[in-house]
Amino acid sequence: MSAVDSAHSAAPAPTPAPTPAMTREELEELIREGVPLVGNFGIVVDSLGAGTIRLRLPYKDDFVRPGGTVTGPAMFGLADVALYGAVLSLIGRVELAVTTSMTINFLRRPPPVAIIAEARVLKLGKRLAYGEILLFSEGDPEPVAHVTGTYSIPPHDPVTVAVSHYRVDGAS
Amino acid sequence: MSAVDSAHSAAPAPTPAPTPAMTREELEELIREGVPLVGNFGIVVDSLGAGTIRLRLPYKDDFVRPGGTVTGPAMFGLADVALYGAVLSLIGRVELAVTTSMTINFLRRPPPVAIIAEARVLKLGKRLAYGEILLFSEGDPEPVAHVTGTYSIPPHDPVTVAVSHYRVDGAS
Amino acid sequence: MSAVDSAHSAAPAPTPAPTPAMTREELEELIREGVPLVGNFGIVVDSLGAGTIRLRLPYKDDFVRPGGTVTGPAMFGLADVALYGAVLSLIGRVELAVTTSMTINFLRRPPPVAIIAEARVLKLGKRLAYGEILLFSEGDPEPVAHVTGTYSIPPHDPVTVAVSHYRVDGAS
Amino acid sequence: MSAVDSAHSAAPAPTPAPTPAMTREELEELIREGVPLVGNFGIVVDSLGAGTIRLRLPYKDDFVRPGGTVTGPAMFGLADVALYGAVLSLIGRVELAVTTSMTINFLRRPPPVAIIAEARVLKLGKRLAYGEILLFSEGDPEPVAHVTGTYSIPPHDPVTVAVSHYRVDGAS
Repeated sequence: MSAVDSAHSAAPAPTPAPTPAMTREELEELIREGVPLVGNFGIVVDSLGAGTIRLRLPYKDDFVRPGGTVTGPAMFGLADVALYGAVLSLIGRVELAVTTSMTINFLRRPPPVAIIAEARVLKLGKRLAYGEILLFSEGDPEPVAHVTGTYSIPPHDPVTVAVSHYRVDGAS
Repeated sequence: MSAVDSAHSAAPAPTPAPTPAMTREELEELIREGVPLVGNFGIVVDSLGAGTIRLRLPYKDDFVRPGGTVTGPAMFGLADVALYGAVLSLIGRVELAVTTSMTINFLRRPPPVAIIAEARVLKLGKRLAYGEILLFSEGDPEPVAHVTGTYSIPPHDPVTVAVSHYRVDGAS
Repeated sequence: MSAVDSAHSAAPAPTPAPTPAMTREELEELIREGVPLVGNFGIVVDSLGAGTIRLRLPYKDDFVRPGGTVTGPAMFGLADVALYGAVLSLIGRVELAVTTSMTINFLRRPPPVAIIAEARVLKLGKRLAYGEILLFSEGDPEPVAHVTGTYSIPPHDPVTVAVSHYRVDGAS
Repeated sequence: MSAVDSAHSAAPAPTPAPTPAMTREELEELIREGVPLVGNFGIVVDSLGAGTIRLRLPYKDDFVRPGGTVTGPAMFGLADVALYGAVLSLIGRVELAVTTSMTINFLRRPPPVAIIAEARVLKLGKRLAYGEILLFSEGDPEPVAHVTGTYSIPPHDPVTVAVSHYRVDGAS
């Protein structure tokens, strides 16, 4: 009963943690050293918020696949690291966060240019974090892929994640 | 080569179709009559844009499941219809649009109250439409579930879908 | 190091729990009473193993959708209950097992006849169970849908799940 | 009406194409040259059927990730190539087959040893192929990951895919 009530009177303005729990430099180093396969991609942390991140994957010749487009595993690796960074921006450097599942939908065939990943955390529970990642070809406003994923994380204090910037703001 | 170039100079302001291709009343009728199982849920179309929609599923006693929470299939049915409506808002009444895949992640156990679904189309290709749906307990700003799905649609003229309201706007 | 070794010498013949932890009658009653929305579908438990199950969903008029085919949410509800039953067959009656995610791929449009669900558990961890479900139109050997899902379960003793019947047995 | 009837009288013994449409050598070469990122992994085609495949990914030092386990993107790349091979084994060398979506569930943390991928096609439609992949640590009968995916393929003649080896064969 009180659960229902509190849901109804829920805070209109959840306050996200104001500053990320890691710096961009710390995160870039962790990616480069902790996960060499993707670390060697040369990924740059463009911006880092609390629960949000933007990464840039420069194009490399060996990302090509038949059709002259970027190979799926490169995009998957980028998305995986982006969600990892978005989660760590909320809970700090916890190397043992591990992916438990990930779903990738390829929406367009990207040309051979840099890929931008924008990730945000949609839920940070006690043991699981869940978020989504949009991938763009640099300079193009339409996404080339959409990814969702779950990370298993060590138990930690609760963090509220605001998704209000997400709401459909009506029409018709 | 020119594909790459055009990607780089891509339009900063894709213009979404300004008005939805169906009215709320037409869509409510289609849901009620076309798909009786979910149609009987009593779903209301709160708002309808071009590629976006907000639906409201009033709580019913038979949505309960052990733990006093709302059963998954009711949320799935709501999300499925929400994406259906968001797609039809772009291409008009095309009954033969069918779901080809859907992934639902349950983020919190919703209390026994109404569920709000907010869907938006992320890609409208020639034969496939892809989008996502956030589900909320009424009055609570944190989502209870996140859903992504693909609809197979009859071949049609291209429609640009803007996702600029989605971009991570930096930090750090 | 020893983790690697033990992986290499892993048991060639994992022995699944020999008998299901619930009877078919107990499970049918739990479905009917615990989750009324899907319980009202009239689902029958055809067979129940330890970690495997076969359910039958009789066709009902309100399962129809445009195109004369079975509506997705009916198939989703059936798959959800099938995995629930397959998990409970290993750990016994634990009502608070809840779905955390589910992915459904629709492969063919089923005609308006009964749907058969065959589920099996692929992993039963301490807190999460994962499995898959194939759905068939009655009498047709090609699947109409494939579903994977994860259940969150109360902590319990480990159970080994054999998937040897699954292995690709070579060719070429 | 006749659709229903034909479903009921459906062939009890769908005959899969008896021989794969490519040799193991041709497929290994295609992987190595067509998709360099994953091609450099050193993947070996262990066996190839018509719609089934077994691949072996030897362990490499840069597959490690925090916790001493194999990094997710290496497993994703292996699974992606496995499904690619299983699809090509049915339709022949069609480089422009592209992944449209993929869902990976990580079930156990694999030790730093070779990973075996076993893939099979569950549906081969006119334009889409769908299948699943189980990943194992070499020598361990319990899977470390389960993957499902969809490939978009050029229009081609229909091929029946048998999944009878999959059926739950009862109990209780």
